[in-house]
Amino acid sequence: MENLVKDYERVDDLQINNLKIIQNPKGFCFGIDAVLLANFVTLKKNAKVVDLGTGTGIIPILLAGKSQTSHITALEIQKEVADMAQRSVQLNHLADRIHVLNMDLKDAEKNLDVNGYDVVTSNPPYMHPEGLLNIEDKKAISRHEVKCTLEDVIRTASRLLKHNGKFFMVHRPIRLADIMVYCRQYKLEPKKLQLIHPTYDKKPNLLLIECVKAAKPELKILDPLYVYHKDGSYTEEIFKIYGRTEIEKGDEVNE
Amino acid sequence: MENLVKDYERVDDLQINNLKIIQNPKGFCFGIDAVLLANFVTLKKNAKVVDLGTGTGIIPILLAGKSQTSHITALEIQKEVADMAQRSVQLNHLADRIHVLNMDLKDAEKNLDVNGYDVVTSNPPYMHPEGLLNIEDKKAISRHEVKCTLEDVIRTASRLLKHNGKFFMVHRPIRLADIMVYCRQYKLEPKKLQLIHPTYDKKPNLLLIECVKAAKPELKILDPLYVYHKDGSYTEEIFKIYGRTEIEKGDEVNE
Repeated sequence: MENLVKDYERVDDLQINNLKIIQNPKGFCFGIDAVLLANFVTLKKNAKVVDLGTGTGIIPILLAGKSQTSHITALEIQKEVADMAQRSVQLNHLADRIHVLNMDLKDAEKNLDVNGYDVVTSNPPYMHPEGLLNIEDKKAISRHEVKCTLEDVIRTASRLLKHNGKFFMVHRPIRLADIMVYCRQYKLEPKKLQLIHPTYDKKPNLLLIECVKAAKPELKILDPLYVYHKDGSYTEEIFKIYGRTEIEKGDEVNE
Repeated sequence: MENLVKDYERVDDLQINNLKIIQNPKGFCFGIDAVLLANFVTLKKNAKVVDLGTGTGIIPILLAGKSQTSHITALEIQKEVADMAQRSVQLNHLADRIHVLNMDLKDAEKNLDVNGYDVVTSNPPYMHPEGLLNIEDKKAISRHEVKCTLEDVIRTASRLLKHNGKFFMVHRPIRLADIMVYCRQYKLEPKKLQLIHPTYDKKPNLLLIECVKAAKPELKILDPLYVYHKDGSYTEEIFKIYGRTEIEKGDEVNE
């Protein structure tokens, strides 16, 4: 294990099926959004899956943990981050099920099977890059639309998916109109939307969306998900999703 | 008053500024959706307002009750219903502020000032007309997209509004993707969205949306609104909105 982890990195136990993940504490660490997305994804047996902008590899690793699927492709544009994700895959003995590619997602349709996947997932950068001081900063690339836009993510997902394939994404409510418009434009019909609220009396700060390629319009808004009780403790739903994974306060939503 | 009300109609007290409304108990009676929409609308002094598909005239009458505006135009395609709305306006001595027109909203741009209004409101028919047995049924016309589609409502609102004018609508969550796509298409940018839930642990069954003509994209999802406590009593927010208006159970959401 030692040679898989660099001295400035740490290994976190995901508390699910003995899964672990390597993270750089000074880089972008996964948040509740990735965990909620992985929980939201539904996978048929042997589904072919692509994760766009995989970062630490958290979503593919959690999907491997909760399913039997052995065809997960994980794209990451940043070489060092892709390398770290690859080492997490090895650490979990998942190299036969998860394939990490150091690739710009905008090149995916040139290199992967177009119309060839059952499921595409993404926890993309949420924010417009305006006002960014250092656009080569690794955290900035994970958080801001520096290397890819929302439209790039949605267009790529659509191209890679089979007819009736499913696209699952976590994003911010502020972008909901953009998401709906791009999804419709690229034939990914929004079918399920779940809003995540910090508490029941606060507005949502995250959304989970499931789109189906070439489906008929009809959106189902699911019951809302509340993260905290008013006393600051986690709700039962969140404990159920996290299993026994330790939840770091303040790390819930990556800004 | 007697000659304003037909013998098969009833007069309901809106419990706000002594306002009253005439309704036909066998026809389409207003629901909580109209009251929530009127509450959601913000009006500047002397705003020029159009209500598309006014029905009983409930929205113009509530807007007149909560503001100083004296330029409210209310369109209703059904002759008998428009006549009833007109009599409610007279009953409330609002004939100098509310003008009811018996007009198809699809003809609005031929007859009203294009780019001439500050605010457009609508509580349109929610449902697709598929499966309807009698498309000339008055209730059906109020509830189903028989005489106008969602796209007709949004296109008309856009044409009538000034630059930066506001469109307020109440609708069903199932149509959210359609709403976003048509609003963007007709330059009505979704700026505020509020979801109405029966109780805090149930999915929303209504939405309120505010769009601004030619505005920049950026959607604010507001705090959710819950209608009932879990014990079945109304929440404080609903009592605040309704004032002392009697709320008829079972009439909350017009199907």
